[in-house]
Amino acid sequence: MPISVSVKTGTRIEMIDITAKVQEEVSKMGTQDGMCVVYVPHTTAGITINEGADPAVCKDILTKLNELVPAGAGYRHLEGNADSHIKASLMGSSVLVLIENGRLVLGTWQKIFFCEFDGPRSRKVALKIQ
Amino acid sequence: MPISVSVKTGTRIEMIDITAKVQEEVSKMGTQDGMCVVYVPHTTAGITINEGADPAVCKDILTKLNELVPAGAGYRHLEGNADSHIKASLMGSSVLVLIENGRLVLGTWQKIFFCEFDGPRSRKVALKIQ
Amino acid sequence: MPISVSVKTGTRIEMIDITAKVQEEVSKMGTQDGMCVVYVPHTTAGITINEGADPAVCKDILTKLNELVPAGAGYRHLEGNADSHIKASLMGSSVLVLIENGRLVLGTWQKIFFCEFDGPRSRKVALKIQ
Repeated sequence: MPISVSVKTGTRIEMIDITAKVQEEVSKMGTQDGMCVVYVPHTTAGITINEGADPAVCKDILTKLNELVPAGAGYRHLEGNADSHIKASLMGSSVLVLIENGRLVLGTWQKIFFCEFDGPRSRKVALKIQ
Repeated sequence: MPISVSVKTGTRIEMIDITAKVQEEVSKMGTQDGMCVVYVPHTTAGITINEGADPAVCKDILTKLNELVPAGAGYRHLEGNADSHIKASLMGSSVLVLIENGRLVLGTWQKIFFCEFDGPRSRKVALKIQ
Repeated sequence: MPISVSVKTGTRIEMIDITAKVQEEVSKMGTQDGMCVVYVPHTTAGITINEGADPAVCKDILTKLNELVPAGAGYRHLEGNADSHIKASLMGSSVLVLIENGRLVLGTWQKIFFCEFDGPRSRKVALKIQ
């Protein structure tokens, strides 16, 4: 059964570092060698891996996404979040991270970011650890 | 051996809900708990997971992709489908979906969409169910 | 333990076909049937699968990414590579390729491309073959 992790977002569009939460579940499972699928079961949120050291990187990613896909710019979908759906598909619905010696194999600067595009909301992320 | 599913597209650019076809193959395999890789072996088509309830969402995604990556806008590739290749890389070549109790674990609004960017064509999607 | 493959890039932004290197590792492992995760542990590089026959396709992809996400266009991240981070998230950090009879299951025109967005650098790609 997939593991479910909760994420609470505080604004319409933001990136939240969930690396520690994912590592915690990997540690609980005790998997030493394998991989972890991190899956977002929402259509107005996505997931990506990028730099976690300088928060400006996430701000730049979000600013660019807002520039390429602005909110409320004459979309057909009438719920006011068409841009959120488009941003979600650009980032993607899942990431894969390898596991070695019980730890997520991430590059020096890499963190896993939940991407909220239509918050604030209470969100879930599903994990599958193999 | 990967399972192959056929998709017939009817226009140059469109998104086709293949969720039922993928679920059918998962059911045939009888896998209760695991995951399914949905892989597109084409370079002018992609795959994404997004909202299936309101067809306007897919139209908005396609309209935005056409706006960001218009067809025939001075590309070097001379086959007239450079935009299709670029769109394919923006959406991605595969999605991963978890399986629980024999069912694809999708969010309430999520459907799996084959993204045709250079149709109409007869396409294939490869599945790996674990 | 993940396998590590080296990639040397020669310019700031380029796509390098690593299909043969990935196939070589699959062959060494002797895996007949399964899948291969190709993971990029960097935050200014990505990975994608697209056409390898005509090099113009890669040039068109890179030109479009530079147009959508130009370098040095007033970003907050002060290291001069904010655009590289954004491009990395648009392409993604991993691809999945199925394996059948010991061979990567790729479409006729598909090749796996390491996407350098802040080179030239010595890079690594992690592989997990199952």
